[in-house]
Amino acid sequence: MRAVVKRGTRLVLDEIADLTPGPGQVLVRTLACGICGSDLHMLHHMEHMFALGRRAGSPSTTDPDKDIVMGHEFACEVIDHGPGSEKKIKAGSTVVSFPVNFGPAGPETVGYSNRFPGGYAEQMLLFEPMLLEAPNGLSADHAALTEPFAVGLHAVNKAQMDKDCVALVIGCGPVGLAVIAALKAKGLGPIHATDYSPARRKLAEAYGADSVVDPSAGDPHAMWKALGVPTNAGEVMAAMIAGAPLRRPVIFECVGVPGLIQSLIEAAPVQARVVVVGVCMETDRIEPGLAVTKEIELRFVLGYSPDEFAQTLRQLAEGVIPAAPIITATVGLSGVAQAFEDLKSPERHAKILVKPGQA
Amino acid sequence: MRAVVKRGTRLVLDEIADLTPGPGQVLVRTLACGICGSDLHMLHHMEHMFALGRRAGSPSTTDPDKDIVMGHEFACEVIDHGPGSEKKIKAGSTVVSFPVNFGPAGPETVGYSNRFPGGYAEQMLLFEPMLLEAPNGLSADHAALTEPFAVGLHAVNKAQMDKDCVALVIGCGPVGLAVIAALKAKGLGPIHATDYSPARRKLAEAYGADSVVDPSAGDPHAMWKALGVPTNAGEVMAAMIAGAPLRRPVIFECVGVPGLIQSLIEAAPVQARVVVVGVCMETDRIEPGLAVTKEIELRFVLGYSPDEFAQTLRQLAEGVIPAAPIITATVGLSGVAQAFEDLKSPERHAKILVKPGQA
Repeated sequence: MRAVVKRGTRLVLDEIADLTPGPGQVLVRTLACGICGSDLHMLHHMEHMFALGRRAGSPSTTDPDKDIVMGHEFACEVIDHGPGSEKKIKAGSTVVSFPVNFGPAGPETVGYSNRFPGGYAEQMLLFEPMLLEAPNGLSADHAALTEPFAVGLHAVNKAQMDKDCVALVIGCGPVGLAVIAALKAKGLGPIHATDYSPARRKLAEAYGADSVVDPSAGDPHAMWKALGVPTNAGEVMAAMIAGAPLRRPVIFECVGVPGLIQSLIEAAPVQARVVVVGVCMETDRIEPGLAVTKEIELRFVLGYSPDEFAQTLRQLAEGVIPAAPIITATVGLSGVAQAFEDLKSPERHAKILVKPGQA
Repeated sequence: MRAVVKRGTRLVLDEIADLTPGPGQVLVRTLACGICGSDLHMLHHMEHMFALGRRAGSPSTTDPDKDIVMGHEFACEVIDHGPGSEKKIKAGSTVVSFPVNFGPAGPETVGYSNRFPGGYAEQMLLFEPMLLEAPNGLSADHAALTEPFAVGLHAVNKAQMDKDCVALVIGCGPVGLAVIAALKAKGLGPIHATDYSPARRKLAEAYGADSVVDPSAGDPHAMWKALGVPTNAGEVMAAMIAGAPLRRPVIFECVGVPGLIQSLIEAAPVQARVVVVGVCMETDRIEPGLAVTKEIELRFVLGYSPDEFAQTLRQLAEGVIPAAPIITATVGLSGVAQAFEDLKSPERHAKILVKPGQA
């Protein structure tokens, strides 16, 4: 079958071996697969990512020097079931899956595995108990957004917000948009957002941001006071004495570049909760003394649970999360390498879907 | 009256002007005042601390180049009330107070003010509505511990723990001991602690630690697995599949030196909540990518609320928090400068009380 193979730091459209489903596995045809920012990073820094996994106690069995077919944001059509299957989901059904399958050495992430090709291939092997059928006639293109939007739901769940919270989303790429969508779906807010890109600011509004600031034109932190969020210890005490409900600032860091966390420690109101969803891969500097003085919280979050994944699929199917706006292009397998280049411009693209059946 | 005056970076025993209580104020005789680690830092770096306050939106009106009498962990005897007082607390009563008084420019911290001398003076002016009478015949020496132990209660409240949490306290100086005491008072734990000093490890046990590790002899993080805390993503998933309650790791960082936060990001189990109580005043380095991979939380905390202060006083009076073990010496005003030197050795001292009435 045809697949876009990561070979070293290159993406090569090639023929690879056909797949046969083993016990517990399902053979699927890839209908659509989003290109994730992590894939752009992984193309050049997979060993670094795996090293972090090892240090977190989760060593990968994947060899980054061998061929890998990436793509973990997929929707597929069921073709065939492995031996012993109950065939609960019939051939022809459109499905998504938490991107994990099980090899002889344990769980492997589909899309970062030597054994299980991801969605930049015509076909894939998935783990049958993880399959979820796309409900309500949800299209494959839209179902493929389950994974990236589940990241937003997880971040919002980790933020433990209530109705007194005010949200600021820093960065309106796919991760920031997923956070905005999850906030909106839960009825949390007001939701404020900031991004340098006009196109992304428009998308932030489409996903439910109440206001979006261009940080080169205005200070995104200027709005706290107007919204009744106490920004320093004196204002916190005044609000407590007044018996007013404390409006709590919650900031989602969805960029992941060095210096950004410290800039938030400096600019955020006291007692701000910063949920770090963006992945800064470099060593970074912070001033703990200032973070203590302001009682800042930094909650680093990653991924999503199977429940969050399933809930996000339902929200897409019910139209609670709008799917269409984030999709800025679709490409066939021959367009993947160029799409990786194109995604470096935040102004041109948000989510590009790979459709292996597309010419 | 006699007072130990901070003059530049020196501590000078001197005569200063007598005090007269204004409206809303009470004149008190200092009976006991603990020396805080912050005072040791302030003696040399007050401008840096004030700069952090300014950056957090709480500018101090104190001029660090003018005389300051430090000491904010005090218990006192009421001498006289200012004009218009209701005199709810009679002269002769033993009292403590949240260390804030109000000058013409607003609130000032008693002990870090040019206007309101702290507890290293024979007498002080306190703000009448903040006074709390020591209950149950609690001695002044023990009542003076209200402030440092309130710091522990605040940190534990901010940790938002439940019965499934396992606590590790890093550093068993006065802050770490206060955290251990607060955990014990709330029935939270098990409580594990670590300190290089044998004397401090003994104090940690006296305050309720279930086990105390010398980090030069063993890894404080070795105990997580034995206690059923999942340390990596695979163990978290296995615990979830087994339906077992997840034992959650909560770490209190009570040291405040560069590199310690990153060492915890590296060594802590996944999903650890790190409550940063120690104040690292230098710029520090962290690896956000690893913190994201492990979903670490960093909650920086400071101080305590008036409620937490009052609750701590009650716990000391009821014997819920043992007062005696932490007090390793008492000195008169003439001994304060030497006590500041002695406190640099963690093995010799925990809390030294200044008793201005002592020779």
